[in-house]
Amino acid sequence: MRLRNKPWAREKIEAHPQYIIPEPEKAKGRWHEVFGNHNPIHIEVGTGKGQFVTGMAKQNPDINYIGIELYESVIITALDRLIEADLPNLKLLNVDGADLLHYFEKGEVGRVYLNFSDPWPKTRHAKRRLTYKSFLNLYESLMPEGGEVHFKTDNQGLFEYSLKSFSEYGMLLTFVSLDLHNSGFEGNVMTEYEEKFSAIGQRIYRSEAKFQPRT
Amino acid sequence: MRLRNKPWAREKIEAHPQYIIPEPEKAKGRWHEVFGNHNPIHIEVGTGKGQFVTGMAKQNPDINYIGIELYESVIITALDRLIEADLPNLKLLNVDGADLLHYFEKGEVGRVYLNFSDPWPKTRHAKRRLTYKSFLNLYESLMPEGGEVHFKTDNQGLFEYSLKSFSEYGMLLTFVSLDLHNSGFEGNVMTEYEEKFSAIGQRIYRSEAKFQPRT
Repeated sequence: MRLRNKPWAREKIEAHPQYIIPEPEKAKGRWHEVFGNHNPIHIEVGTGKGQFVTGMAKQNPDINYIGIELYESVIITALDRLIEADLPNLKLLNVDGADLLHYFEKGEVGRVYLNFSDPWPKTRHAKRRLTYKSFLNLYESLMPEGGEVHFKTDNQGLFEYSLKSFSEYGMLLTFVSLDLHNSGFEGNVMTEYEEKFSAIGQRIYRSEAKFQPRT
Repeated sequence: MRLRNKPWAREKIEAHPQYIIPEPEKAKGRWHEVFGNHNPIHIEVGTGKGQFVTGMAKQNPDINYIGIELYESVIITALDRLIEADLPNLKLLNVDGADLLHYFEKGEVGRVYLNFSDPWPKTRHAKRRLTYKSFLNLYESLMPEGGEVHFKTDNQGLFEYSLKSFSEYGMLLTFVSLDLHNSGFEGNVMTEYEEKFSAIGQRIYRSEAKFQPRT
């Protein structure tokens, strides 16, 4: 999306440390203390304006959610949603998804959500796709054995690429929908982008892939 | 497809033993003698009226093709095509694909093609789908290590199912197209069915999946 410069964003973020965790590297290995319980922790990498992660947190109070978004000018919209909803099981991190190892210990994350990630359509940019093997390796490093990546996109090329990337990494495909909104799938929480593009007839693709024991 | 009873079909099949191999169990382990060379052998399971396998045999003279079709009333159209084209690198078998172990030895088949197979949409019929695990096991039994299954369909549900089935079987997905005819894929040979349904705007799905070494 087009990013507007919002010079006041940093100030607003710092004013809400209970929602957007400052110095999250200090929470590494003790996220359950941050949430005050031992419920599973699911993260969304590239949480954008936060409609998905907020909706999931409302729908599943026994799961803790962490939305990760690099851009200040975007995460403040997620912050507004969270201030309004005041959900105890949702936190936000204003950090780069590529640095997740700084913030989570092995096994600390139960599931990774990727929604409408940047497709980086040029082959020479494949390494930047959030389903590239180095990112899959990163997610695997955060999760216990059998951890899952749940992925939605409307981008056909990115979905084709990602199915192959999951497979090549040795992950097990446990769910594939090539038209989510006409599939009978229940409990789908839409992102802002998903609402907009499915309304004009764009197909939504969705997969679940599971890391498998290394042999 | 709807099958018409054609009582003269059996007679026609038997009149062309050079094209539709009689008693193919006798060729097991010696298909290279049948073709008179040591070129790779690719088979199509459910060859229908034979447009695909005939087209492939014309396009690739250094590959031997075997089209397998159970229904007499259908295979005679493939026979007509083959009589017309008189291709030395194409044979037909009027047998059940489920019985392939009777006709080929391990390693004798280099590749399996599945095109627009019956989707068997009801869950209780999943075992009849040609991408069900028992069929994958059958194909693996015919091929050397690294053998591939190339699959096309316009049926969304069958494609979703098949991607999961390949993955669950431990196969590697090496190609996925969710809209083959708009993908820039070169060398595609269309089936009769594919021509008809893509002409009315139906998407064609295509995958390649490779068997992997057992650990």
